[in-house]
Amino acid sequence: MSDNNTPIGVFDSGVGGLTVAREIIRQLPNESIVYFGDTARVPYGSKSKETIIRYSRQIVRFLRTKNVKAIVVACNTASAYALDTIEKELDIPMIGVVKPGAKSAIANTRNKRIGIIGTEGTIKSELYTEFIHGIDPDIEVLGKACPLFVPLVEEGMLHDTVTDEIASRYLNDLKKQEIDSLILGCTHYPLLRSTVGKIMGNKVNLVNPAYETAVSLGELLNQKGIAADKTNSPVYEYYVSDAAERFKSFANSIMPVKTEMIRLVNIEEY
Amino acid sequence: MSDNNTPIGVFDSGVGGLTVAREIIRQLPNESIVYFGDTARVPYGSKSKETIIRYSRQIVRFLRTKNVKAIVVACNTASAYALDTIEKELDIPMIGVVKPGAKSAIANTRNKRIGIIGTEGTIKSELYTEFIHGIDPDIEVLGKACPLFVPLVEEGMLHDTVTDEIASRYLNDLKKQEIDSLILGCTHYPLLRSTVGKIMGNKVNLVNPAYETAVSLGELLNQKGIAADKTNSPVYEYYVSDAAERFKSFANSIMPVKTEMIRLVNIEEY
Repeated sequence: MSDNNTPIGVFDSGVGGLTVAREIIRQLPNESIVYFGDTARVPYGSKSKETIIRYSRQIVRFLRTKNVKAIVVACNTASAYALDTIEKELDIPMIGVVKPGAKSAIANTRNKRIGIIGTEGTIKSELYTEFIHGIDPDIEVLGKACPLFVPLVEEGMLHDTVTDEIASRYLNDLKKQEIDSLILGCTHYPLLRSTVGKIMGNKVNLVNPAYETAVSLGELLNQKGIAADKTNSPVYEYYVSDAAERFKSFANSIMPVKTEMIRLVNIEEY
Repeated sequence: MSDNNTPIGVFDSGVGGLTVAREIIRQLPNESIVYFGDTARVPYGSKSKETIIRYSRQIVRFLRTKNVKAIVVACNTASAYALDTIEKELDIPMIGVVKPGAKSAIANTRNKRIGIIGTEGTIKSELYTEFIHGIDPDIEVLGKACPLFVPLVEEGMLHDTVTDEIASRYLNDLKKQEIDSLILGCTHYPLLRSTVGKIMGNKVNLVNPAYETAVSLGELLNQKGIAADKTNSPVYEYYVSDAAERFKSFANSIMPVKTEMIRLVNIEEY
């Protein structure tokens, strides 16, 4: 057995990062995953940079006890605040969701007008804007916070007239701004892709950072020569810091593989 | 100057407890208040009892540095999980929101059918049910979690057709159960009082624990002989563990007195 069959560590502040784990399962079906959702300390978007780095360090220490070969930060806030600091401390590769999502939007925009929707924390921090302007300062980045999207998704209201109405209010301004690409800048939002697409129309390219992250992860694993064997039967393990039952029911509503084993971790001990 | 003019300490996991502070300001206009909102560690509803006791102890230690004469636990979860333990450790009085709210509902129900709405954490923990049954086991307590109410309030959608629609879905079952009293069992919910009242109709008595808590606090201060002087000019101080700006804008949207001074506290040091 090769070491390459050790798992990928994936973490998020809660359930949202499951959309990233789901893309990894779809695109890299031989990779095992150890997922950690920090359900006791969710949400991260309203917390300070220092706090997010401290939390992310604890989670990385926990994931390393599971012998992970790479870490995916499936959380926008932690990708923006903690990734650069923590990857320097590690001898395994680490990638986040912000860069792959932003890069795809940059590559695809024709009129250089990119929209970004996310939580209040993500939009206020301008984390996508900063990264995009680092690559092309001429691109106009238009952000809009959609604070009700996460609770609507967690209530299972993915296809619902109320969700349509709220989405239409949130997106109305962005629609007028003639963006040609819209980044779904929160890990919950791919689950509202059809609602958002209906409102924005088919001329706006919806960028799903979860999808792009799985693509980047695949490339990274190949580059480093640590992709799992084609014969490897993957194992998916889930850990949370609180409320395992609630996590399980959400996971089973969106994941392609039934989620059986969810364990509670006292993350503050790491 | 009498010692009676020292402040009341009020704490909550976030902004919700401001509805309790607001009632204290209205009913006891000479009392000063030191408010602490644990915005870094919100929400409490999904955390364990041990964690809530530890957090509450830290907050009480912080409030005591402000020389408070009494403490109001303006948080349903902390009232249920931490109050009984911590009040034994203190030489100043401490009251929570659960008992005053539950007692008012018990005193007013005629058909012994009480409804309770709250966050998923509050409803699942059955904290109101347990207290009500301790006083009268014959009362039927019907709970319903309304997870979208807090984000809707925090979005300022207090009077909105979307909020009406969501409230009507949440309350539909409770309406059929012929309750005659409904406890607004989350500190955000008094801000949705008119929406909830419209749906439940005027035969259902809405119990606002924030209001009842301020009444109980007034009685307690009088009993102990520690009410502020009638000539005292109150001072209101606000402390949070994170995101002071967001707290300020919410406070200014609901408080009767403009909130200027909000300070950040590293609560984990207490």
